[in-house]
Amino acid sequence: MLLDLTQHKPSGVTIDNCQAGDMVTVSGMIHNVRVTKWGGFIILRKSRGLLQAVVQNETSKFFDESGNEIALNGLCREMAVTIEGTVGEAKIKDPAAFYNTIEVAVSTVRVLSRPTTPEVVDMNALKFGDEETLLRYKFDNRQVTLRNPRDMAILKVQSTIAKAFADFLTENGFTQIYTPKIVSEGAEGGANVFKMDYFGKQVYLAQSPQFYKQIGVGVYERVFEIAPAYRAEKHNTSRHLNEYISLDVEMGFIKGQEDVMTLEAALLHAIISRVVTDCAHELALLNATVPQLPQQVPAWKLSEVHEILFENHLCEEDHRGEDDLAPEEERAICKYALEQFGSDFVFVTHFPSQHRAFYAMDDPEDPSLTLSFDLLMRGLEITSGGQRIHKEADYREKMLKRGMNPDNFRFYLDTFKNGMPPHGGFAIGLERITACFLGINNVKECSMFPRDINRVAP
Amino acid sequence: MLLDLTQHKPSGVTIDNCQAGDMVTVSGMIHNVRVTKWGGFIILRKSRGLLQAVVQNETSKFFDESGNEIALNGLCREMAVTIEGTVGEAKIKDPAAFYNTIEVAVSTVRVLSRPTTPEVVDMNALKFGDEETLLRYKFDNRQVTLRNPRDMAILKVQSTIAKAFADFLTENGFTQIYTPKIVSEGAEGGANVFKMDYFGKQVYLAQSPQFYKQIGVGVYERVFEIAPAYRAEKHNTSRHLNEYISLDVEMGFIKGQEDVMTLEAALLHAIISRVVTDCAHELALLNATVPQLPQQVPAWKLSEVHEILFENHLCEEDHRGEDDLAPEEERAICKYALEQFGSDFVFVTHFPSQHRAFYAMDDPEDPSLTLSFDLLMRGLEITSGGQRIHKEADYREKMLKRGMNPDNFRFYLDTFKNGMPPHGGFAIGLERITACFLGINNVKECSMFPRDINRVAP
Repeated sequence: MLLDLTQHKPSGVTIDNCQAGDMVTVSGMIHNVRVTKWGGFIILRKSRGLLQAVVQNETSKFFDESGNEIALNGLCREMAVTIEGTVGEAKIKDPAAFYNTIEVAVSTVRVLSRPTTPEVVDMNALKFGDEETLLRYKFDNRQVTLRNPRDMAILKVQSTIAKAFADFLTENGFTQIYTPKIVSEGAEGGANVFKMDYFGKQVYLAQSPQFYKQIGVGVYERVFEIAPAYRAEKHNTSRHLNEYISLDVEMGFIKGQEDVMTLEAALLHAIISRVVTDCAHELALLNATVPQLPQQVPAWKLSEVHEILFENHLCEEDHRGEDDLAPEEERAICKYALEQFGSDFVFVTHFPSQHRAFYAMDDPEDPSLTLSFDLLMRGLEITSGGQRIHKEADYREKMLKRGMNPDNFRFYLDTFKNGMPPHGGFAIGLERITACFLGINNVKECSMFPRDINRVAP
Repeated sequence: MLLDLTQHKPSGVTIDNCQAGDMVTVSGMIHNVRVTKWGGFIILRKSRGLLQAVVQNETSKFFDESGNEIALNGLCREMAVTIEGTVGEAKIKDPAAFYNTIEVAVSTVRVLSRPTTPEVVDMNALKFGDEETLLRYKFDNRQVTLRNPRDMAILKVQSTIAKAFADFLTENGFTQIYTPKIVSEGAEGGANVFKMDYFGKQVYLAQSPQFYKQIGVGVYERVFEIAPAYRAEKHNTSRHLNEYISLDVEMGFIKGQEDVMTLEAALLHAIISRVVTDCAHELALLNATVPQLPQQVPAWKLSEVHEILFENHLCEEDHRGEDDLAPEEERAICKYALEQFGSDFVFVTHFPSQHRAFYAMDDPEDPSLTLSFDLLMRGLEITSGGQRIHKEADYREKMLKRGMNPDNFRFYLDTFKNGMPPHGGFAIGLERITACFLGINNVKECSMFPRDINRVAP
């Protein structure tokens, strides 16, 4: 037998390129059936959302898997069906439907397969008294509750953000890399690392691809990665996941951390544009407004943020001299940036060295500070980044100062011993930026199958 | 401070858009320096490969990190430098260089940073007596040996294959998903699964996203994933990795497994086209010829393959009646397909049920066989795929027949209980297809940081 590869696409009219009056064949899952005196409605669920099909008792026909004719009330939710019919303009433009300008007048419905039980999870009825109960139910039955159009929309936006990230960076000379998640050394230190046995040896799940993306800069100048990262954090909050997707960037030959921040701003601009273009339906369904990112993005030193907020009386307390941002400051500086500069984003730079990872480059003008930054969006930190140390001697000095043993980092230090350009980078948590874009309170809703201290299934 | 995001790109002439006579500024790592009587050559390494810069004693000047003038012999390999000069046509078009039609007449070289030791790994001298010693050296020092243009080229092609995979599927209505690698149940069964402790619970590293991508079909109709997969295989061969990147596809509303195979053929066609277009330099450097994929791709049943090879006397032995392909058959049928149909690819279908995963759909015409396939390329299996069971009852029956306990698969079975369309899919090992494309013998060379039973670092 010979397979013709040009046959992989349907030819002719499809539901995605049809006009009123066209005959179409469209497959999907029955999301709902409503019976009326004169016929009824079948709400069909497709990959992007809902389509309304209109049944007329006199002209519409229904067939089961064996080709036997059945009645409309023989159809039920979560049947896989193929509908043939004529495209018409939608009487009511329902924003909840993806296909909200057209509807299909049904000629035939053919059942392809059906649920085992008529008691399928009712995606339309996913409303509970309190949010915690709703979320627990959703996550416990994620294999089916993902079929809820709202959840479909959230993860469609997530997927679009990741694709836009990859496309922008590829266009700008970055190489996408794939680095191991089974590692012999944790990059970020601390206790929150998952351990496992690897043929009798203790290894770890990577907390980040930090070491590997820096190595990548010595090879490809500019690299990025989209991959899972692991944090064995025991606190179960709405802002944390134990397994999340990290969008990592690292670039060489920078003049300073400003180059990294400028790239990130341009990248975010491209992501926002793509989401607006490709996810208009999802944004409408979720009643979400994408963040504002002007051409000029504010970037202030931590000490300047303290000062701005104090001078303008924007915080309850005086935080000047503190070595981190207080939560009220995160909110206040974002509000200020939006009002004064039309920006939902604020870079905060020059965090104290003792609070940043060992690989952060100290500021030559004040070595107690680092050339590192956080990016705040709508009051929440979505990125950490900065310029990295690129000299072996500077790494050794900082490691010793922190009580780290350089011998445990042989391959990492060998990278710098063999020469490395000035470089820097950042990481964005995919679930967190998705939540921020969409105004979702719990980051777990932006993970297809969230992992937390209590949950490893489904 | 305000960052202008439009400044993320260099304006004006760059090394990638210049013409003879242009002044350019170009940064990179010094790959090699050759001193002559009249000056010399600096071979600069950029993200895609090498560029030749020509030094004239009378006109070229060199400066160290502090801006002090130095001599040409003050430069060494693996220094990060910025070169200013004038673009000229290359005297010799060296296929080993990415920039092989131009060269740069050096005005100045400024050192940005330097290796700690002059004894940096000599990427040009990576030649050993036997391949095993060379590979061990390469992998032991991967953080630096990746800078070898040949290794850079392999992984650039790998990255391009993955990007082409994502782009083609996105254009064809597939949604990219991100599923967990920490799982409570292994999808593929067997002993080769890594176990780990997750807050006191035993969990596994995912062998494949099989369950999750099938769930994804109930949500988005068509899904794909690019992510690591884990196999705790103890054999250390040139064809296996313990951590690899799996390119996974799953599509709903199929009429049969032919739809899946046709899609895969079209996908491979798109990948090959992209590699030819975007990686011409890498293919030339590696002396590689991409595989031939005609519009009509051969697809034979396992029993037909036995028969074809027997009738045409293409194998030493008579394999008719055997329940798998013998290695000599894999090679022989690929040779036959290339000679008769101009195809480096052959689909082999209808493998016996007992050799395929439990989720494979049995052939209604002969339930001892499955509607499943392998895709062979140049004598090697690069894909397994097929149509999946989509009815809960069929899963339960097959599980019980195999001594599996359906209760251990609650969330998976619940997916089918709640209705699923007919569907199927496949998975491609990224490192393996890269090796096949490029004629690389050891799949580990196609992994940035390979993991095998003896190796978890770098």
